[in-house]
Amino acid sequence: MSDQFIKSRAAVAWAAGEPLSIEEVDVMRPRAGEVMVQIVASGVCHTDAFTLSGDDPEGVFPAIMGHEGGGIVVEIGEGVTSVAVGDHVIPLYTAECGECKFCTSGKTNLCQAVRETQGKGLMPDGTTRFYKDGQPIYHYMGCSTFSEYTVLPEISLAVVNPEAPLEEVCLLGCGVTTGMGAVLNTAKVETGDTVAIFGLGGIGLSAIIGARMAGAKRIIGIDINESKFDLAKKLGATDCINPKDYDRPIQEVIVELTDGGVDYSFECIGNVDIMRSALECCHKGWGESIIIGVAGAGQEISTRPFQLVTGRVWRGTAFGGVKGRSELPGIVEQYLSGEFALDDFITHTLPLDGINEAFELMHEGKSIRSVIHFNHSPK
Amino acid sequence: MSDQFIKSRAAVAWAAGEPLSIEEVDVMRPRAGEVMVQIVASGVCHTDAFTLSGDDPEGVFPAIMGHEGGGIVVEIGEGVTSVAVGDHVIPLYTAECGECKFCTSGKTNLCQAVRETQGKGLMPDGTTRFYKDGQPIYHYMGCSTFSEYTVLPEISLAVVNPEAPLEEVCLLGCGVTTGMGAVLNTAKVETGDTVAIFGLGGIGLSAIIGARMAGAKRIIGIDINESKFDLAKKLGATDCINPKDYDRPIQEVIVELTDGGVDYSFECIGNVDIMRSALECCHKGWGESIIIGVAGAGQEISTRPFQLVTGRVWRGTAFGGVKGRSELPGIVEQYLSGEFALDDFITHTLPLDGINEAFELMHEGKSIRSVIHFNHSPK
Repeated sequence: MSDQFIKSRAAVAWAAGEPLSIEEVDVMRPRAGEVMVQIVASGVCHTDAFTLSGDDPEGVFPAIMGHEGGGIVVEIGEGVTSVAVGDHVIPLYTAECGECKFCTSGKTNLCQAVRETQGKGLMPDGTTRFYKDGQPIYHYMGCSTFSEYTVLPEISLAVVNPEAPLEEVCLLGCGVTTGMGAVLNTAKVETGDTVAIFGLGGIGLSAIIGARMAGAKRIIGIDINESKFDLAKKLGATDCINPKDYDRPIQEVIVELTDGGVDYSFECIGNVDIMRSALECCHKGWGESIIIGVAGAGQEISTRPFQLVTGRVWRGTAFGGVKGRSELPGIVEQYLSGEFALDDFITHTLPLDGINEAFELMHEGKSIRSVIHFNHSPK
Repeated sequence: MSDQFIKSRAAVAWAAGEPLSIEEVDVMRPRAGEVMVQIVASGVCHTDAFTLSGDDPEGVFPAIMGHEGGGIVVEIGEGVTSVAVGDHVIPLYTAECGECKFCTSGKTNLCQAVRETQGKGLMPDGTTRFYKDGQPIYHYMGCSTFSEYTVLPEISLAVVNPEAPLEEVCLLGCGVTTGMGAVLNTAKVETGDTVAIFGLGGIGLSAIIGARMAGAKRIIGIDINESKFDLAKKLGATDCINPKDYDRPIQEVIVELTDGGVDYSFECIGNVDIMRSALECCHKGWGESIIIGVAGAGQEISTRPFQLVTGRVWRGTAFGGVKGRSELPGIVEQYLSGEFALDDFITHTLPLDGINEAFELMHEGKSIRSVIHFNHSPK
């Protein structure tokens, strides 16, 4: 039986550095172990912009980007058992096979089952499901949520409570989970701790929420864009600092402000110099710094090893250390029970053909998150 | 009452880069909170050589060096209650006051009670206890074990079982505890783990012992001096590797050899390039690298942040994370019960006036540890 296709609206990145182009593409129906999802909404994330810029060494073009979505299963391929038509799902750029060395280690969420092909913009069988006039288009981060219909491996979908509005919980597919998880899963911040959060975009603000949920006593937000401070404080920041207000390194300012440094710091930008500041503002003896931001290709972090020998710890996190299939449904339940809100993050909602505006709003620092609604009705 | 002095033989470092000079110095009797110790034996450590070279930014001269000693209490100052004349003690360059923010944190051994004055070569009251012809001579790391008589704060002494030969357990004052502790306390290596140990000097060999005690399945020793391999294997190394045998980075070799990398690595040299190799040979998702070696002033470590974002952890350790007063006595008991041996480390014993030879043996890579016996009888 030959492969069958359906038509889908999609924003195609034909080449690095160019605006996305809204196209009608052909999407191949799911093969064995695969699932077709109708995307209802998708956030636009800095990582999409990073790859689109051409700086991402893994970036391949043409591609359909987007990795922070929410949708509904419309068709399952042969052998798929854990996902059913009609399920509400969040696509996962970090799969969870439950069987690989990583999944069974009990130490990491970095399942490697589909990593190799995903990094090349392909499905696990080495081919793509997207075509335009017969020309293959690559997948992106295994998700491609900028297409109304997309295909993913079964192990790359978290089934969530259908009561949760997909237009909001789509943000749990990347940014919010990454920030909250970094605090709660990776750092394991405890009641009474002092934390510093560098960069108050979607990730940083989510880290603030995580810190508040953990019971941190003092939550210091750092950004050079003071327009972020009001929301940061609303979400739980106790102090907001603009490094431009000081003529010495911000780590010195924070060490002084906190009588020796913070218990945990989080870099939510992707700037290697700020990664150093984040490490060095940690308390001697026990302070831990967690890198969340993604730096440009080839960039390196540095510090004096004395910083580590005297007890600071440098670590990183991806997707907040969260195992998507087993843990994301519970995070959606936390959201539904009111433990945290998501609407604060959504500054703009746009139809698919407004996606380039969403990128512009992000570059101009005017949005926290723009969410693309495939069936758009203005917010 | 004016201060009183006793005479002591000591090796004095008059200036950076010069051989030590054996002198008769005047040692002031202990003031309040202080203790005079007769040193029986002292190891000669790379850190002594590092400071003597002039590269240590905290190095001050003239000084009496040495920080890996064992001795007997000969006099206590006013108010000293936890140490008595006749006690066998190991001097601690990391004090344990039990009261400061660090001691009470439960997270670190880096007591700061006497840190500031100690770093300046002074006793906590800001003065020295050593003089030569009326000229003050600085202390070193709060220990100055290259003097037959030395004075330390009460909180800088661990009282140990007098049955333990001070000529051997002096090594627990620095190197052996540092290496073993890094594995057992800082990394918390577990049964079945794979570890890599870079540098097979006293610290690295001690780390091997720690890894064996922890039940590590595979213990890979790395050194460019293959003469270290026999002892490394005797102590528990399962593989020994010479980076010079390969034409690619040693981290790649180790990742291949271990199907993805090691669970824990330890840098026991003080070379910032090797610190990077040690990090990058760790397993994605969970591998942790612990810096033990002390790098030269101003030198920096670097890596791509991706190494951390994908789950590796970079940390350091000082004195193996061991709280000297509360934990060192137990380590001496472990030694006495045969859990590990110390004589393997002691390749040379020398009288005080052979101390410059001890430094030469170390620089030439001919010794693991030379131990100075103040009352020398050839081994």
